[in-house]
Amino acid sequence: MKKVAIIGPGLLGGSIALALRQLGGASIAIWARRREAADEARANGFADAASTSLREVVDGANLIVFCTPIGAMGKLARELPGLISPETLITDVGSVKATIVAELGAIFRERGRFVGSHPMAGSEQIGMQAARADLFAGAVCIVTPDEHSEPAAVAEITVFWKTLGCDVRQLAPGEHDKVVALISHFPHLLAATLVEMVTAQNASAFDFCGPGFRDTTRVASGPPAMWTEILESNRDSVRASAEAMIEKLREIVRLLGSDSGSQAMHEFLTRAKAARDRLRPHK
Amino acid sequence: MKKVAIIGPGLLGGSIALALRQLGGASIAIWARRREAADEARANGFADAASTSLREVVDGANLIVFCTPIGAMGKLARELPGLISPETLITDVGSVKATIVAELGAIFRERGRFVGSHPMAGSEQIGMQAARADLFAGAVCIVTPDEHSEPAAVAEITVFWKTLGCDVRQLAPGEHDKVVALISHFPHLLAATLVEMVTAQNASAFDFCGPGFRDTTRVASGPPAMWTEILESNRDSVRASAEAMIEKLREIVRLLGSDSGSQAMHEFLTRAKAARDRLRPHK
Repeated sequence: MKKVAIIGPGLLGGSIALALRQLGGASIAIWARRREAADEARANGFADAASTSLREVVDGANLIVFCTPIGAMGKLARELPGLISPETLITDVGSVKATIVAELGAIFRERGRFVGSHPMAGSEQIGMQAARADLFAGAVCIVTPDEHSEPAAVAEITVFWKTLGCDVRQLAPGEHDKVVALISHFPHLLAATLVEMVTAQNASAFDFCGPGFRDTTRVASGPPAMWTEILESNRDSVRASAEAMIEKLREIVRLLGSDSGSQAMHEFLTRAKAARDRLRPHK
Repeated sequence: MKKVAIIGPGLLGGSIALALRQLGGASIAIWARRREAADEARANGFADAASTSLREVVDGANLIVFCTPIGAMGKLARELPGLISPETLITDVGSVKATIVAELGAIFRERGRFVGSHPMAGSEQIGMQAARADLFAGAVCIVTPDEHSEPAAVAEITVFWKTLGCDVRQLAPGEHDKVVALISHFPHLLAATLVEMVTAQNASAFDFCGPGFRDTTRVASGPPAMWTEILESNRDSVRASAEAMIEKLREIVRLLGSDSGSQAMHEFLTRAKAARDRLRPHK
Protein backbone atom coordinates (compact mmCIF):
# COMPACT_ATOMS: atom_id res chain seq x y z
CA MET A 1 0.00 0.00 0.00
CA LYS A 2 2.10 2.91 -1.21
CA LYS A 3 -0.41 5.78 -1.34
CA VAL A 4 -3.84 5.86 0.29
CA ALA A 5 -6.29 8.62 -0.62
CA ILE A 6 -9.00 9.29 1.97
CA ILE A 7 -12.00 11.19 0.64
CA GLY A 8 -13.58 13.03 3.56
CA PRO A 9 -11.83 13.82 6.88
CA GLY A 10 -14.53 12.88 9.39
CA LEU A 11 -14.44 10.46 12.30
CA LEU A 12 -13.91 7.43 10.06
CA GLY A 13 -11.59 9.04 7.51
CA GLY A 14 -9.53 10.63 10.26
CA SER A 15 -9.33 7.35 12.19
CA ILE A 16 -8.20 5.44 9.08
CA ALA A 17 -5.49 8.08 8.58
CA LEU A 18 -4.31 7.84 12.19
CA ALA A 19 -4.32 4.03 12.10
CA LEU A 20 -2.28 4.01 8.87
CA ARG A 21 0.18 6.54 10.29
CA GLN A 22 0.67 4.34 13.31
CA LEU A 23 1.31 1.34 11.07
CA GLY A 24 3.67 3.38 8.88
CA GLY A 25 4.78 2.71 5.33
CA ALA A 26 1.97 4.39 3.41
CA SER A 27 1.76 7.92 2.13
CA ILE A 28 -1.63 9.40 3.09
CA ALA A 29 -3.56 12.09 1.25
CA ILE A 30 -6.86 13.49 2.46
CA TRP A 31 -9.49 15.26 0.39
CA ALA A 32 -11.78 17.70 2.17
CA ARG A 33 -14.59 19.80 0.77
CA ARG A 34 -13.55 22.81 2.83
CA ARG A 35 -10.07 24.36 2.67
CA GLU A 36 -9.98 24.79 6.50
CA ALA A 37 -10.66 21.08 7.02
CA ALA A 38 -7.83 20.19 4.64
CA ASP A 39 -5.49 22.62 6.42
CA GLU A 40 -6.50 21.20 9.78
CA ALA A 41 -5.89 17.62 8.63
CA ARG A 42 -2.39 18.51 7.48
CA ALA A 43 -1.60 20.72 10.48
CA ASN A 44 -2.65 17.97 12.90
CA GLY A 45 -0.50 15.39 11.20
CA PHE A 46 -3.33 13.23 9.83
CA ALA A 47 -1.84 13.14 6.35
CA ASP A 48 1.23 13.81 4.25
CA ALA A 49 -0.95 15.90 1.97
CA ALA A 50 -4.47 17.30 2.24
CA SER A 51 -6.30 19.33 -0.33
CA THR A 52 -9.66 20.32 -1.74
CA SER A 53 -8.46 19.15 -5.15
CA LEU A 54 -9.56 15.58 -5.89
CA ARG A 55 -7.00 15.41 -8.70
CA GLU A 56 -4.10 16.11 -6.33
CA VAL A 57 -5.35 13.75 -3.65
CA VAL A 58 -6.02 10.70 -5.83
CA ASP A 59 -3.03 11.18 -8.13
CA GLY A 60 -1.01 7.96 -8.00
CA ALA A 61 -3.11 6.49 -5.17
CA ASN A 62 -3.13 2.71 -4.91
CA LEU A 63 -6.21 2.76 -2.68
CA ILE A 64 -9.01 5.32 -2.45
CA VAL A 65 -11.40 5.18 0.52
CA PHE A 66 -14.65 7.16 0.35
CA CYS A 67 -15.47 8.43 3.85
CA THR A 68 -17.95 11.20 3.06
CA PRO A 69 -21.67 11.01 3.83
CA ILE A 70 -23.23 8.46 1.48
CA GLY A 71 -25.19 11.12 -0.42
CA ALA A 72 -21.96 12.80 -1.56
CA MET A 73 -20.17 9.67 -2.78
CA GLY A 74 -21.72 9.32 -6.24
CA LYS A 75 -20.97 12.87 -7.35
CA LEU A 76 -17.35 12.68 -6.17
CA ALA A 77 -16.86 9.21 -7.64
CA ARG A 78 -17.96 10.40 -11.08
CA GLU A 79 -15.04 12.81 -11.14
CA LEU A 80 -12.45 10.08 -10.60
CA PRO A 81 -12.32 7.79 -13.64
CA GLY A 82 -10.27 10.27 -15.68
CA LEU A 83 -7.88 10.79 -12.79
CA ILE A 84 -7.00 7.23 -11.77
CA SER A 85 -5.60 4.05 -13.26
CA PRO A 86 -7.91 1.03 -13.76
CA GLU A 87 -5.66 -0.79 -11.29
CA THR A 88 -6.65 1.53 -8.44
CA LEU A 89 -8.44 -0.20 -5.57
CA ILE A 90 -11.49 1.74 -4.33
CA THR A 91 -13.74 1.23 -1.32
CA ASP A 92 -16.09 3.23 0.88
CA VAL A 93 -17.27 3.16 4.48
CA GLY A 94 -20.97 3.86 3.88
CA SER A 95 -23.54 2.40 6.27
CA VAL A 96 -25.89 1.46 3.43
CA LYS A 97 -24.55 -0.80 0.71
CA ALA A 98 -27.04 -1.87 -1.98
CA THR A 99 -27.43 1.61 -3.52
CA ILE A 100 -23.78 2.63 -3.03
CA VAL A 101 -22.34 -0.60 -4.41
CA ALA A 102 -24.63 -0.36 -7.45
CA GLU A 103 -23.76 3.29 -8.05
CA LEU A 104 -20.00 3.23 -7.38
CA GLY A 105 -19.66 -0.23 -8.91
CA ALA A 106 -21.10 1.08 -12.19
CA ILE A 107 -18.96 4.22 -12.16
CA PHE A 108 -15.72 2.27 -11.70
CA ARG A 109 -16.50 -0.77 -13.87
CA GLU A 110 -13.35 -1.34 -16.01
CA ARG A 111 -12.00 2.00 -14.76
CA GLY A 112 -11.00 1.02 -11.23
CA ARG A 113 -11.46 -1.90 -8.86
CA PHE A 114 -14.32 -1.15 -6.46
CA VAL A 115 -15.44 -3.22 -3.46
CA GLY A 116 -17.83 -1.84 -0.82
CA SER A 117 -17.04 -1.94 2.92
CA HIS A 118 -18.80 -1.05 6.14
CA PRO A 119 -16.66 -0.91 9.27
CA MET A 120 -19.03 -1.17 12.26
CA ALA A 121 -17.13 1.43 14.24
CA GLY A 122 -17.80 4.98 15.19
CA SER A 123 -19.65 6.72 17.95
CA GLU A 124 -22.19 9.43 18.43
CA GLN A 125 -19.30 11.87 18.02
CA ILE A 126 -18.31 13.31 14.70
CA GLY A 127 -15.40 14.94 12.96
CA MET A 128 -11.67 14.56 12.79
CA GLN A 129 -11.30 15.76 16.40
CA ALA A 130 -12.99 12.55 17.57
CA ALA A 131 -10.75 10.32 15.38
CA ARG A 132 -8.73 7.57 17.09
CA ALA A 133 -6.00 5.30 15.73
CA ASP A 134 -7.62 2.33 17.51
CA LEU A 135 -11.20 2.96 16.36
CA PHE A 136 -11.14 -0.17 14.21
CA ALA A 137 -9.33 -2.47 16.64
CA GLY A 138 -11.65 -5.42 17.19
CA ALA A 139 -14.51 -3.88 15.19
CA VAL A 140 -16.46 -5.92 12.68
CA CYS A 141 -15.97 -4.73 9.09
CA ILE A 142 -18.47 -6.04 6.55
CA VAL A 143 -17.05 -6.28 3.03
CA THR A 144 -19.85 -6.44 0.43
CA PRO A 145 -18.74 -7.88 -2.91
CA ASP A 146 -21.30 -8.34 -5.66
CA GLU A 147 -21.26 -10.35 -8.90
CA HIS A 148 -19.00 -7.76 -10.55
CA SER A 149 -16.34 -7.76 -7.82
CA GLU A 150 -12.90 -9.00 -8.72
CA PRO A 151 -11.84 -11.70 -6.21
CA ALA A 152 -8.33 -10.23 -5.98
CA ALA A 153 -9.77 -6.81 -5.12
CA VAL A 154 -11.99 -8.35 -2.43
CA ALA A 155 -8.93 -10.09 -0.98
CA GLU A 156 -6.90 -6.86 -0.97
CA ILE A 157 -9.68 -4.86 0.73
CA THR A 158 -10.03 -7.63 3.30
CA VAL A 159 -6.31 -7.44 4.07
CA PHE A 160 -6.56 -3.65 4.34
CA TRP A 161 -9.25 -3.78 7.04
CA LYS A 162 -7.53 -6.64 8.85
CA THR A 163 -4.36 -4.55 8.95
CA LEU A 164 -6.40 -1.85 10.72
CA GLY A 165 -7.49 -4.42 13.30
CA CYS A 166 -10.94 -5.31 11.97
CA ASP A 167 -12.69 -8.62 12.21
CA VAL A 168 -13.70 -8.85 8.52
CA ARG A 169 -16.90 -10.60 7.34
CA GLN A 170 -18.63 -10.73 3.97
CA LEU A 171 -22.24 -10.15 3.05
CA ALA A 172 -23.89 -9.42 -0.28
CA PRO A 173 -24.90 -5.71 -0.39
CA GLY A 174 -28.66 -6.36 -0.08
CA GLU A 175 -28.16 -8.85 2.74
CA HIS A 176 -25.88 -6.32 4.47
CA ASP A 177 -28.64 -3.72 4.39
CA LYS A 178 -31.16 -6.09 5.97
CA VAL A 179 -28.77 -7.19 8.72
CA VAL A 180 -27.61 -3.65 9.49
CA ALA A 181 -31.19 -2.36 9.55
CA LEU A 182 -31.79 -4.82 12.40
CA ILE A 183 -28.69 -4.08 14.47
CA SER A 184 -27.89 -0.46 13.67
CA HIS A 185 -30.29 1.59 11.55
CA PHE A 186 -33.53 0.59 13.26
CA PRO A 187 -31.96 0.66 16.78
CA HIS A 188 -30.87 4.24 16.01
CA LEU A 189 -34.44 5.17 15.08
CA LEU A 190 -35.68 3.35 18.17
CA ALA A 191 -33.35 5.26 20.52
CA ALA A 192 -34.39 8.59 19.00
CA THR A 193 -38.06 7.59 19.22
CA LEU A 194 -37.63 6.66 22.90
CA VAL A 195 -36.21 10.12 23.60
CA GLU A 196 -39.10 11.70 21.67
CA MET A 197 -41.68 9.59 23.50
CA VAL A 198 -40.33 10.59 26.93
CA THR A 199 -40.20 14.23 25.85
CA ALA A 200 -43.85 14.03 24.82
CA GLN A 201 -44.99 12.20 27.97
CA ASN A 202 -43.00 14.06 30.62
CA ALA A 203 -39.89 16.00 29.64
CA SER A 204 -38.94 16.56 33.29
CA ALA A 205 -38.39 12.79 33.59
CA PHE A 206 -34.99 13.38 31.95
CA ASP A 207 -33.83 15.00 35.20
CA PHE A 208 -34.02 11.63 36.94
CA CYS A 209 -32.13 9.49 34.43
CA GLY A 210 -29.58 6.92 35.49
CA PRO A 211 -26.79 5.35 33.43
CA GLY A 212 -29.20 2.84 31.86
CA PHE A 213 -31.20 5.46 29.96
CA ARG A 214 -27.99 7.21 28.91
CA ASP A 215 -26.63 4.02 27.35
CA THR A 216 -29.93 2.94 25.79
CA THR A 217 -30.25 6.30 24.03
CA ARG A 218 -26.56 7.07 23.34
CA VAL A 219 -26.77 6.61 19.57
CA ALA A 220 -29.60 9.20 19.43
CA SER A 221 -26.86 11.80 19.92
CA GLY A 222 -25.46 10.94 16.49
CA PRO A 223 -25.45 13.46 13.62
CA PRO A 224 -29.04 14.03 12.34
CA ALA A 225 -28.15 14.78 8.71
CA MET A 226 -26.05 11.62 8.34
CA TRP A 227 -28.73 9.48 9.95
CA THR A 228 -31.57 10.98 7.92
CA GLU A 229 -29.67 9.95 4.80
CA ILE A 230 -28.93 6.45 6.12
CA LEU A 231 -32.53 5.82 7.22
CA GLU A 232 -33.96 7.06 3.92
CA SER A 233 -31.46 5.02 1.90
CA ASN A 234 -32.38 1.83 3.74
CA ARG A 235 -36.00 2.63 4.40
CA ASP A 236 -37.59 -0.65 3.30
CA SER A 237 -35.46 -2.73 5.65
CA VAL A 238 -35.77 -0.19 8.47
CA ARG A 239 -39.54 -0.15 8.07
CA ALA A 240 -39.63 -3.96 8.13
CA SER A 241 -37.61 -3.94 11.37
CA ALA A 242 -39.95 -1.35 12.86
CA GLU A 243 -43.03 -3.39 11.97
CA ALA A 244 -41.48 -6.49 13.53
CA MET A 245 -40.61 -4.48 16.65
CA ILE A 246 -44.11 -3.06 17.04
CA GLU A 247 -45.58 -6.54 16.77
CA LYS A 248 -43.09 -7.98 19.28
CA LEU A 249 -43.70 -5.10 21.66
CA ARG A 250 -47.46 -5.72 21.55
CA GLU A 251 -46.84 -9.38 22.29
CA ILE A 252 -44.57 -8.64 25.27
CA VAL A 253 -46.83 -5.97 26.73
CA ARG A 254 -49.69 -8.48 26.71
CA LEU A 255 -47.68 -10.52 29.24
CA LEU A 256 -47.78 -7.62 31.70
CA GLY A 257 -50.63 -8.25 34.02
CA SER A 258 -51.96 -11.38 32.40
CA ASP A 259 -52.57 -14.14 34.93
CA SER A 260 -49.95 -16.47 33.54
CA GLY A 261 -47.73 -13.61 32.34
CA SER A 262 -45.16 -13.59 35.12
CA GLN A 263 -43.61 -16.94 34.17
CA ALA A 264 -43.64 -16.02 30.47
CA MET A 265 -42.11 -12.60 31.23
CA HIS A 266 -39.34 -14.27 33.23
CA GLU A 267 -38.66 -16.66 30.35
CA PHE A 268 -38.61 -13.80 27.84
CA LEU A 269 -36.18 -11.72 29.94
CA THR A 270 -34.00 -14.80 30.46
CA ARG A 271 -33.84 -15.44 26.69
CA ALA A 272 -33.07 -11.78 25.97
CA LYS A 273 -30.33 -11.72 28.61
CA ALA A 274 -28.76 -14.90 27.22
CA ALA A 275 -28.72 -13.46 23.68
CA ARG A 276 -27.39 -10.09 24.87
CA ASP A 277 -24.69 -11.76 27.00
CA ARG A 278 -23.44 -13.60 23.90
CA LEU A 279 -22.73 -10.39 21.96
CA ARG A 280 -19.14 -9.85 20.94
CA PRO A 281 -17.41 -8.00 23.76
CA HIS A 282 -16.33 -4.39 23.35
CA LYS A 283 -12.69 -4.14 22.49
CA MET B 1 -25.14 7.52 62.08
CA LYS B 2 -23.82 5.01 64.62
CA LYS B 3 -25.04 1.68 63.26
CA VAL B 4 -26.37 0.99 59.79
CA ALA B 5 -28.09 -2.34 59.06
CA ILE B 6 -28.15 -3.35 55.40
CA ILE B 7 -30.73 -5.98 54.54
CA GLY B 8 -29.48 -7.86 51.49
CA PRO B 9 -25.85 -7.93 50.29
CA GLY B 10 -26.32 -7.40 46.52
CA LEU B 11 -24.86 -4.77 44.23
CA LEU B 12 -26.66 -1.91 46.00
CA GLY B 13 -26.35 -3.20 49.56
CA GLY B 14 -22.68 -4.02 49.02
CA SER B 15 -22.01 -0.61 47.45
CA ILE B 16 -23.70 1.21 50.34
CA ALA B 17 -21.52 -0.78 52.75
CA LEU B 18 -18.34 0.04 50.82
CA ALA B 19 -19.26 3.73 50.58
CA LEU B 20 -19.96 3.90 54.33
CA ARG B 21 -16.70 2.14 55.13
CA GLN B 22 -14.83 4.65 53.03
CA LEU B 23 -16.55 7.51 54.88
CA GLY B 24 -15.86 5.85 58.23
CA GLY B 25 -17.60 6.43 61.56
CA ALA B 26 -20.51 4.00 61.24
CA SER B 27 -20.70 0.41 62.33
CA ILE B 28 -22.12 -1.70 59.49
CA ALA B 29 -24.13 -4.90 59.81
CA ILE B 30 -25.34 -6.90 56.83
CA TRP B 31 -28.20 -9.39 56.75
CA ALA B 32 -28.08 -12.11 54.10
CA ARG B 33 -30.52 -14.92 53.44
CA ARG B 34 -27.72 -17.42 52.87
CA ARG B 35 -25.03 -18.15 55.46
CA GLU B 36 -22.32 -18.20 52.71
CA ALA B 37 -23.29 -14.70 51.56
CA ALA B 38 -23.06 -13.42 55.14
CA ASP B 39 -19.66 -15.09 55.58
CA GLU B 40 -18.46 -13.64 52.30
CA ALA B 41 -19.60 -10.12 53.25
CA ARG B 42 -17.68 -10.32 56.50
CA ALA B 43 -14.61 -12.01 55.00
CA ASN B 44 -14.38 -9.36 52.29
CA GLY B 45 -14.59 -6.52 54.76
CA PHE B 46 -17.97 -5.19 53.70
CA ALA B 47 -19.27 -5.07 57.27
CA ASP B 48 -18.33 -5.23 60.92
CA ALA B 49 -20.93 -7.96 61.32
CA ALA B 50 -22.92 -10.08 58.92
CA SER B 51 -25.48 -12.68 59.76
CA THR B 52 -28.59 -14.54 58.66
CA SER B 53 -30.27 -13.43 61.89
CA LEU B 54 -32.36 -10.29 61.41
CA ARG B 55 -32.44 -9.79 65.17
CA GLU B 56 -28.64 -9.60 65.41
CA VAL B 57 -28.28 -7.36 62.39
CA VAL B 58 -30.91 -4.75 63.29
CA ASP B 59 -30.21 -4.74 67.02
CA GLY B 60 -29.41 -1.16 68.01
CA ALA B 61 -29.35 0.04 64.39
CA ASN B 62 -30.05 3.73 63.84
CA LEU B 63 -30.74 3.18 60.15
CA ILE B 64 -31.99 0.11 58.31
CA VAL B 65 -31.75 -0.04 54.52
CA PHE B 66 -33.71 -2.70 52.64
CA CYS B 67 -31.67 -3.80 49.61
CA THR B 68 -33.35 -7.12 48.79
CA PRO B 69 -35.51 -7.70 45.72
CA ILE B 70 -38.76 -5.80 46.22
CA GLY B 71 -40.82 -8.99 46.53
CA ALA B 72 -38.89 -9.99 49.67
CA MET B 73 -39.15 -6.67 51.50
CA GLY B 74 -42.64 -6.99 53.01
CA LYS B 75 -42.04 -10.36 54.62
CA LEU B 76 -38.73 -9.26 56.15
CA ALA B 77 -40.14 -5.92 57.27
CA ARG B 78 -42.97 -7.61 59.17
CA GLU B 79 -40.37 -9.31 61.39
CA LEU B 80 -38.80 -6.04 62.47
CA PRO B 81 -41.25 -4.05 64.62
CA GLY B 82 -40.59 -6.17 67.72
CA LEU B 83 -36.84 -5.87 67.20
CA ILE B 84 -36.34 -2.14 66.73
CA SER B 85 -37.06 1.13 68.51
CA PRO B 86 -39.72 3.49 67.06
CA GLU B 87 -36.87 5.98 66.57
CA THR B 88 -35.17 3.76 63.99
CA LEU B 89 -34.92 5.28 60.54
CA ILE B 90 -35.82 2.85 57.74
CA THR B 91 -35.53 3.11 53.99
CA ASP B 92 -35.28 0.84 50.96
CA VAL B 93 -33.73 0.97 47.50
CA GLY B 94 -36.60 -0.60 45.55
CA SER B 95 -37.18 0.45 41.93
CA VAL B 96 -40.96 0.59 42.39
CA LYS B 97 -42.32 2.84 45.12
CA ALA B 98 -46.13 3.07 45.34
CA THR B 99 -46.64 -0.53 46.52
CA ILE B 100 -43.49 -0.67 48.67
CA VAL B 101 -44.12 2.67 50.38
CA ALA B 102 -47.72 1.65 51.12
CA GLU B 103 -46.66 -1.76 52.45
CA LEU B 104 -43.57 -0.79 54.45
CA GLY B 105 -45.14 2.51 55.54
CA ALA B 106 -48.05 0.62 57.11
CA ILE B 107 -45.78 -1.95 58.77
CA PHE B 108 -43.62 0.73 60.42
CA ARG B 109 -46.32 3.30 61.25
CA GLU B 110 -45.63 4.37 64.87
CA ARG B 111 -43.07 1.54 65.16
CA GLY B 112 -40.23 3.01 63.13
CA ARG B 113 -39.64 5.98 60.82
CA PHE B 114 -39.89 4.80 57.21
CA VAL B 115 -39.18 6.84 54.04
CA GLY B 116 -38.80 5.20 50.61
CA SER B 117 -35.77 5.82 48.38
CA HIS B 118 -34.67 4.86 44.90
CA PRO B 119 -31.04 5.51 44.01
CA MET B 120 -30.79 5.48 40.19
CA ALA B 121 -27.53 3.57 40.23
CA GLY B 122 -26.56 0.06 39.39
CA SER B 123 -25.67 -1.80 36.27
CA GLU B 124 -26.52 -4.97 34.45
CA GLN B 125 -24.18 -6.72 36.89
CA ILE B 126 -25.37 -8.19 40.12
CA GLY B 127 -24.08 -9.27 43.50
CA MET B 128 -21.62 -8.05 46.07
CA GLN B 129 -18.70 -8.82 43.74
CA ALA B 130 -19.85 -5.98 41.47
CA ALA B 131 -20.21 -3.51 44.39
CA ARG B 132 -18.27 -0.24 44.24
CA ALA B 133 -17.74 2.45 46.87
CA ASP B 134 -18.38 5.12 44.23
CA LEU B 135 -21.55 3.60 42.74
CA PHE B 136 -23.66 6.47 44.10
CA ALA B 137 -21.28 9.32 43.32
CA GLY B 138 -23.23 11.70 41.11
CA ALA B 139 -26.24 9.39 40.80
CA VAL B 140 -29.76 10.71 41.20
CA CYS B 141 -31.53 9.34 44.28
CA ILE B 142 -35.30 9.82 44.38
CA VAL B 143 -36.68 10.05 47.91
CA THR B 144 -40.44 9.34 47.96
CA PRO B 145 -42.23 10.68 51.04
CA ASP B 146 -45.98 10.31 51.34
CA GLU B 147 -48.57 11.97 53.58
CA HIS B 148 -47.47 9.83 56.54
CA SER B 149 -43.76 10.67 56.30
CA GLU B 150 -42.19 12.57 59.14
CA PRO B 151 -40.37 15.65 57.76
CA ALA B 152 -37.40 15.03 60.07
CA ALA B 153 -37.08 11.45 58.76
CA VAL B 154 -37.20 12.71 55.16
CA ALA B 155 -34.46 15.20 55.97
CA GLU B 156 -32.28 12.53 57.59
CA ILE B 157 -32.67 10.12 54.66
CA THR B 158 -31.83 12.96 52.29
CA VAL B 159 -28.64 13.69 54.20
CA PHE B 160 -27.76 9.98 54.17
CA TRP B 161 -27.91 9.74 50.35
CA LYS B 162 -26.13 13.06 49.93
CA THR B 163 -23.34 11.76 52.14
CA LEU B 164 -22.99 8.84 49.71
CA GLY B 165 -22.62 11.32 46.85
CA CYS B 166 -26.15 11.30 45.45
CA ASP B 167 -28.01 14.14 43.83
CA VAL B 168 -31.24 13.80 45.87
CA ARG B 169 -34.69 14.67 44.44
CA GLN B 170 -38.20 14.11 45.79
CA LEU B 171 -41.24 12.63 44.10
CA ALA B 172 -44.46 11.24 45.53
CA PRO B 173 -44.44 7.42 45.26
CA GLY B 174 -47.03 7.24 42.46
CA GLU B 175 -45.35 10.03 40.49
CA HIS B 176 -42.01 8.22 40.94
CA ASP B 177 -43.44 5.07 39.40
CA LYS B 178 -44.71 6.96 36.34
CA VAL B 179 -41.42 8.80 35.80
CA VAL B 180 -39.29 5.71 36.32
CA ALA B 181 -41.51 3.65 33.99
CA LEU B 182 -40.60 6.16 31.26
CA ILE B 183 -36.84 6.31 31.86
CA SER B 184 -35.99 2.91 33.31
CA HIS B 185 -38.64 0.19 33.46
CA PHE B 186 -40.02 0.59 29.95
CA PRO B 187 -36.55 1.18 28.40
CA HIS B 188 -35.48 -2.11 30.01
CA LEU B 189 -38.43 -3.89 28.42
CA LEU B 190 -37.66 -2.13 25.12
CA ALA B 191 -34.01 -3.26 25.11
CA ALA B 192 -35.01 -6.86 25.83
CA THR B 193 -37.69 -6.69 23.13
CA LEU B 194 -35.15 -5.38 20.61
CA VAL B 195 -32.88 -8.36 21.34
CA GLU B 196 -35.87 -10.71 20.99
CA MET B 197 -36.97 -9.07 17.72
CA VAL B 198 -33.49 -9.43 16.17
CA THR B 199 -33.31 -13.04 17.38
CA ALA B 200 -36.63 -13.75 15.69
CA GLN B 201 -35.76 -11.96 12.43
CA ASN B 202 -32.17 -13.08 11.99
CA ALA B 203 -30.16 -14.36 14.94
CA SER B 204 -26.93 -14.38 12.92
CA ALA B 205 -27.19 -10.56 12.74
CA PHE B 206 -25.73 -10.51 16.27
CA ASP B 207 -22.37 -11.54 14.77
CA PHE B 208 -22.10 -8.16 13.07
CA CYS B 209 -22.91 -5.88 15.99
CA GLY B 210 -20.97 -2.72 16.69
CA PRO B 211 -20.72 -0.74 19.94
CA GLY B 212 -24.05 1.02 19.28
CA PHE B 213 -26.14 -2.14 19.56
CA ARG B 214 -24.17 -3.21 22.64
CA ASP B 215 -24.97 0.04 24.42
CA THR B 216 -28.60 0.22 23.28
CA THR B 217 -29.23 -3.27 24.66
CA ARG B 218 -26.90 -3.25 27.71
CA VAL B 219 -29.66 -3.18 30.30
CA ALA B 220 -31.18 -6.34 28.76
CA SER B 221 -28.31 -8.20 30.45
CA GLY B 222 -29.81 -7.35 33.85
CA PRO B 223 -31.14 -10.05 36.21
CA PRO B 224 -34.42 -11.52 34.80
CA ALA B 225 -36.03 -12.38 38.15
CA MET B 226 -35.51 -8.88 39.54
CA TRP B 227 -36.82 -7.26 36.38
CA THR B 228 -39.86 -9.53 36.12
CA GLU B 229 -40.81 -8.38 39.60
CA ILE B 230 -40.20 -4.69 38.81
CA LEU B 231 -42.18 -4.80 35.55
CA GLU B 232 -45.11 -6.61 37.17
CA SER B 233 -45.13 -4.24 40.13
CA ASN B 234 -45.27 -1.20 37.87
CA ARG B 235 -47.23 -2.73 35.04
CA ASP B 236 -49.83 0.00 34.51
CA SER B 237 -47.22 2.70 34.00
CA VAL B 238 -44.99 0.41 31.92
CA ARG B 239 -47.92 -0.51 29.71
CA ALA B 240 -48.80 3.17 29.27
CA SER B 241 -45.21 3.90 28.21
CA ALA B 242 -45.30 0.98 25.79
CA GLU B 243 -48.54 2.20 24.22
CA ALA B 244 -47.10 5.70 23.83
CA MET B 245 -43.94 4.21 22.27
CA ILE B 246 -45.85 2.07 19.78
CA GLU B 247 -47.87 5.10 18.69
CA LYS B 248 -44.76 7.28 18.37
CA LEU B 249 -42.94 4.55 16.44
CA ARG B 250 -45.82 4.29 13.96
CA GLU B 251 -45.73 8.06 13.51
CA ILE B 252 -41.96 8.10 12.88
CA VAL B 253 -42.00 5.14 10.55
CA ARG B 254 -44.60 6.91 8.42
CA LEU B 255 -41.96 9.56 7.71
CA LEU B 256 -39.73 6.95 6.10
CA GLY B 257 -40.34 7.11 2.42
CA SER B 258 -43.08 9.70 2.44
CA ASP B 259 -42.44 12.47 -0.08
CA SER B 260 -42.03 15.19 2.49
CA GLY B 261 -40.59 12.81 5.10
CA SER B 262 -36.93 13.64 4.76
CA GLN B 263 -37.21 17.13 6.20
CA ALA B 264 -39.49 15.92 9.00
CA MET B 265 -37.12 13.03 9.76
CA HIS B 266 -34.21 15.44 9.98
CA GLU B 267 -36.18 17.67 12.35
CA PHE B 268 -37.18 14.69 14.49
CA LEU B 269 -33.59 13.39 14.75
CA THR B 270 -32.37 16.92 15.54
CA ARG B 271 -34.92 17.26 18.38
CA ALA B 272 -34.02 13.82 19.76
CA LYS B 273 -30.30 14.60 19.64
CA ALA B 274 -30.83 17.93 21.43
CA ALA B 275 -32.84 16.23 24.20
CA ARG B 276 -30.34 13.36 24.51
CA ASP B 277 -27.39 15.78 24.58
CA ARG B 278 -28.97 17.58 27.55
CA LEU B 279 -29.03 14.44 29.76
CA ARG B 280 -27.05 14.65 32.95
CA PRO B 281 -23.52 13.49 32.16
CA HIS B 282 -22.19 10.22 33.50
CA LYS B 283 -20.14 10.78 36.59
